[in-house]
Amino acid sequence: MQQFLTDHGIGTSLVLGLVGLGVAGLLIRTVLASSAGNERMAEIAAAVQEGAKAYLHRQLVTVLIIAAVIFAAIFKLRGWETAMGFVLGAVCSLAAGYIGMMVAVRANVRTAQAASVSPHSALKVAFNGGAVTGLLVVALGLLSVGAFYLMIREFSGNTKVAIDSLVGLALGSSLISVFARLGGGIYTKAADVGADLVGKIEQNLQEDDPRNPATIADNVGDNVGDCAGMAADVFETYAVSLIGAVLVGYLTALNQSMAAVIYPFVICGVSIIGAILGIGFVNVAPISPTKALIGGVVVSGLVSAALLWPVTGMFFPQALEFSGKPVDARSLYICVAIGIALTFAAVGITNHFTSTAHGPVRRLAKACETGHATNIIAGISTGHHATVLPVLCIVGSIWWCHQEAGLYGIAIAVVSMLSLSGIIISLDAFGPITDNAGGIAVMSGLDPDVRKVTDELDAVGNTMKAVTKGYAIASAGLAAMVLFGSYVEELKAILNEDFRFDLMDPRVIIGLFIGGLLPFSFTAYAMDAVGNAAGAVVKEVRRQIAARPGILNGTEVPEYKTCVDIVTKAALRQMILPALLPLIFVIVVAKIPQLGPVALGGVLVGTIVTGLFLGIAMTSSGGAWDNAKKYVEDGNHGGKGSPAHAAAVTGDTVGDPYKDTAGPAVNPMIKVVNILAILIIPILFR
Amino acid sequence: MQQFLTDHGIGTSLVLGLVGLGVAGLLIRTVLASSAGNERMAEIAAAVQEGAKAYLHRQLVTVLIIAAVIFAAIFKLRGWETAMGFVLGAVCSLAAGYIGMMVAVRANVRTAQAASVSPHSALKVAFNGGAVTGLLVVALGLLSVGAFYLMIREFSGNTKVAIDSLVGLALGSSLISVFARLGGGIYTKAADVGADLVGKIEQNLQEDDPRNPATIADNVGDNVGDCAGMAADVFETYAVSLIGAVLVGYLTALNQSMAAVIYPFVICGVSIIGAILGIGFVNVAPISPTKALIGGVVVSGLVSAALLWPVTGMFFPQALEFSGKPVDARSLYICVAIGIALTFAAVGITNHFTSTAHGPVRRLAKACETGHATNIIAGISTGHHATVLPVLCIVGSIWWCHQEAGLYGIAIAVVSMLSLSGIIISLDAFGPITDNAGGIAVMSGLDPDVRKVTDELDAVGNTMKAVTKGYAIASAGLAAMVLFGSYVEELKAILNEDFRFDLMDPRVIIGLFIGGLLPFSFTAYAMDAVGNAAGAVVKEVRRQIAARPGILNGTEVPEYKTCVDIVTKAALRQMILPALLPLIFVIVVAKIPQLGPVALGGVLVGTIVTGLFLGIAMTSSGGAWDNAKKYVEDGNHGGKGSPAHAAAVTGDTVGDPYKDTAGPAVNPMIKVVNILAILIIPILFR
Repeated sequence: MQQFLTDHGIGTSLVLGLVGLGVAGLLIRTVLASSAGNERMAEIAAAVQEGAKAYLHRQLVTVLIIAAVIFAAIFKLRGWETAMGFVLGAVCSLAAGYIGMMVAVRANVRTAQAASVSPHSALKVAFNGGAVTGLLVVALGLLSVGAFYLMIREFSGNTKVAIDSLVGLALGSSLISVFARLGGGIYTKAADVGADLVGKIEQNLQEDDPRNPATIADNVGDNVGDCAGMAADVFETYAVSLIGAVLVGYLTALNQSMAAVIYPFVICGVSIIGAILGIGFVNVAPISPTKALIGGVVVSGLVSAALLWPVTGMFFPQALEFSGKPVDARSLYICVAIGIALTFAAVGITNHFTSTAHGPVRRLAKACETGHATNIIAGISTGHHATVLPVLCIVGSIWWCHQEAGLYGIAIAVVSMLSLSGIIISLDAFGPITDNAGGIAVMSGLDPDVRKVTDELDAVGNTMKAVTKGYAIASAGLAAMVLFGSYVEELKAILNEDFRFDLMDPRVIIGLFIGGLLPFSFTAYAMDAVGNAAGAVVKEVRRQIAARPGILNGTEVPEYKTCVDIVTKAALRQMILPALLPLIFVIVVAKIPQLGPVALGGVLVGTIVTGLFLGIAMTSSGGAWDNAKKYVEDGNHGGKGSPAHAAAVTGDTVGDPYKDTAGPAVNPMIKVVNILAILIIPILFR
Repeated sequence: MQQFLTDHGIGTSLVLGLVGLGVAGLLIRTVLASSAGNERMAEIAAAVQEGAKAYLHRQLVTVLIIAAVIFAAIFKLRGWETAMGFVLGAVCSLAAGYIGMMVAVRANVRTAQAASVSPHSALKVAFNGGAVTGLLVVALGLLSVGAFYLMIREFSGNTKVAIDSLVGLALGSSLISVFARLGGGIYTKAADVGADLVGKIEQNLQEDDPRNPATIADNVGDNVGDCAGMAADVFETYAVSLIGAVLVGYLTALNQSMAAVIYPFVICGVSIIGAILGIGFVNVAPISPTKALIGGVVVSGLVSAALLWPVTGMFFPQALEFSGKPVDARSLYICVAIGIALTFAAVGITNHFTSTAHGPVRRLAKACETGHATNIIAGISTGHHATVLPVLCIVGSIWWCHQEAGLYGIAIAVVSMLSLSGIIISLDAFGPITDNAGGIAVMSGLDPDVRKVTDELDAVGNTMKAVTKGYAIASAGLAAMVLFGSYVEELKAILNEDFRFDLMDPRVIIGLFIGGLLPFSFTAYAMDAVGNAAGAVVKEVRRQIAARPGILNGTEVPEYKTCVDIVTKAALRQMILPALLPLIFVIVVAKIPQLGPVALGGVLVGTIVTGLFLGIAMTSSGGAWDNAKKYVEDGNHGGKGSPAHAAAVTGDTVGDPYKDTAGPAVNPMIKVVNILAILIIPILFR
């Protein structure tokens, strides 16, 4: 049995990946088969589709130039295999986001239509639209990594070359995901903030009022940011974690045992079954939306956990040595279980800090009574508080997994955690679809009851979005630790030297500080970018309203397209500097002879440490402010229109770039730093 | 000559310390000799004095209980010498704050009176009042450390015992300074925010209106926070850096050479001459206030630099080995110069980010035009941006000093940086005095021209305050690095084992994360504390206004004392949890057998890394918001009363706990963690 798994484990996993793709295809058909509503709805949906497509195309062109340079460099310095991996990683990361988004912009209008039938059918359309992205992420991730590995191994006849080329794939997906997360994040929040500043505040228009020239841009933003950006981000974390585990398995297992290399693929393959069953559960369970969605995650986790027990036993019938320490199946299964448990912990803790049902958000809502400033102070402190428990859970997991199976154990926990992405991303991608559905309902003048249905689903979607961000950053932190381990092992393997990263070595301390400043500088630029791009939107909206007075009384249709255009250009221009920042720092540190590989190790860890805290703090603060506003709008502390509401809106607006631009973009940024470091070892340090 | 210095270096330094005390005494006489104004002014000043004294006494009682427990533990576990050191450190830290504050609350009314004569005489009174604190900090720091060291060496006849006992002194001063910084910081901002929320926003009263029942508490706050709290903080950094350098010198120099132990004392002694000359310069230079103050710093720095060149040469006529590496006088002098240069860099960079004359603050003021949220977003991003340059400067200094003279070189750079505290604290303590003077001028109905003079000086004071915070946090970060080095050397010396803190060791990573979360959790509690205490003030002010309507039309005098009382109690209650947080974490990590000394090393560095970034970011954001408000009030972007001004006020209010409570309290917190770790080595790890 072990022999079969070692010989055909990757192949079997790839088949499961294909099954995932197949189910995603089926879901696309189901979504497209439901009614797309009336003509006005189709018109609006088409405008959103067009804007989203236009943005992604423009983004592609921008990224292509940078990617071409990097491709050339990798090709020249690391050979064609790694360069091919780079291209494949980039293409798949883009594809996951692109296809997912194209389904989402079709699911939105169908959700609006379904909402006029029943809440449950609306939930189904929206969720299945999101599930396409979820399945695409895991299936494409598994297929690209697995197939590429097999292919290069076949071509080169050398496992080492195949594994090394995977680092190229990791860099390709990470680089795209930094751009997608940042560009999408800047776009969505610039459009949102810009539309609100002129629309709501200056002209007193409601959200999604078709007279607001930026309203289509705002709806496009939900798709390019929360859908395409997020999909690229999680695709990257997924692929990179898998690659990290493969690398660590190869570098640390005795005699480079193939079982250690193949096991991570099989975890990913098995959990696709879990994801499909979880998605099925949400479709058939006759319970409330929140319960159905959480139930889907639980089903998915339990199925994966149950299937992996026998699989792990078959894989490792006897203990295998990793870095000189014997590890048995039981130990590895404990690591799998820790990964799944950590997922639930991350989800639960983020939920506590960002849901209206718990203390922290209520405290924020109360702080709104005494004004803007007290809400901001309380929100920032909530974010800081929210870092403690997740970090302690991560720390506990690192300790336990390391006890059980060393660095490989941590890698397995990360893979098992990320193997749940299929269902988790389905929940996340559900949010922008319902959000858009609500927008379409208002803009096409559907019955207000429809909007009520979509609003309720949107509230559920908001909580899910906040919660999956906690999951994403926690998993990214852990994945980055594995990458750091790979960096060190790779250094040892390539340079044949035993490196030490002692805190007493000033180079390590210098590295930690330089690494630590990256997330601070990066998030600062990201927030500035939103401000600058939003400013461009404000100017354009004001211009249109002044030039064509008919817009406001509804006799003239605003030029939505120019707004879409302007925010597209602004977002893309603004994303370049922060996205290149980590690349520049890594190469500069590596190039300075007094710093070199040891300081670079410090940089990697420093980036993880401050990045993890900033990521959790920013996404939690943002989520809490968002829901505190919702809580006030539900009639608490004075309700809509009260001074407390004004303060809550300020908090929400501050939270927008916090939770949707800067905070989540820290994830891929941390990993770009780590992967790039691995990639340049043989180039700069040999 | 070297023999003379080794034999009498500390003694000579102590004489210079006494000279510093003498000059402080002279300055007190000069300040008290100037006119204290009319009866109404004396009355108000007396109320402020009384409130400040009452707060400090109550704080003393609270701290005494905690200190008594720690004293007993140290006495039992580390012996009477270290316990005595603890008491001495605590007493001197308190004394520096107490005496400085008692002078400040007398200088304030005299500054108000002098302002009715001429701006220059007001500057002189205020500056000399502040200079008392500056000189006290350095003189008491040097005298306590030096005299205690000599005394214990005499008693025990053992240099090692004497040096070890200094760790007790360091912990005593650090502990007091955490309490003083936090308690004072919570007090000052709770009173400020509370007074503003009811006074300015609900009742439309001006700043310092005597009808506001919280106005005296607000003025008390300036003294207990910005004066006593800050003095205790810098006293601590000064004493701890000196002790750290002594420890490192003793532990790393060949044959425990006495020159290495005594040299740091001499640096401190010599720079007292520099501080006195700098203070003299400010008093006589016939130039604008800002130029005079900055000139004082330059004079002080140049004098110290000039004197230390020959002194260093005499101390080290030939190279001395540190950790096996020969170090000569030239190398050590370079470290001294780096410390002085780093001071100027920290001051310059913070000034760039927080002064109205430069881009960052102007950008914030502009962001106020589009509302509260955009100002907040821009302010947070400014804080993040502001971390980059100081950290790069620190990193560069670490690298260079380590090249020149290893860990001892870094320690010498810190001592040389902190030897400038005498003049720097004079600038800082000048701020609350002019602030109070303005309050007294308004409350006692002096001519509005007087307020104009004090306002101008206050604006200068604000910039100085922001700038010295940058200096304090940068020096604390560097000092903490030295303490971490001492921790490691002490571990080696006591446990006779060669410890490694390799980033590949999961205990180190776990430590880094746990250490990293301390500043986040600590600042979260600190900000909550301000909110809670301010809430108590708001309630009391509302109660008084409702109960006695005569207060608002000026026919009844409000009960200032109850407000002072309430905020005193609230601040003290709220400071306990965050102040104990670092102690608890250090002991728990040390006690868990799977973590132990290696993980604790990670905790120390983790705390320094995130603490440094948070400290710089928070103080810079806060300073920038403060001055952006001033810039708007100067008539830009709509000026006072405009919507931009409302947004600017929100930023300033958010910035209050940022820059005056949470941000600066991170400094002593980082060091408590590090010193406690050194102290518990022989207790828990042997």
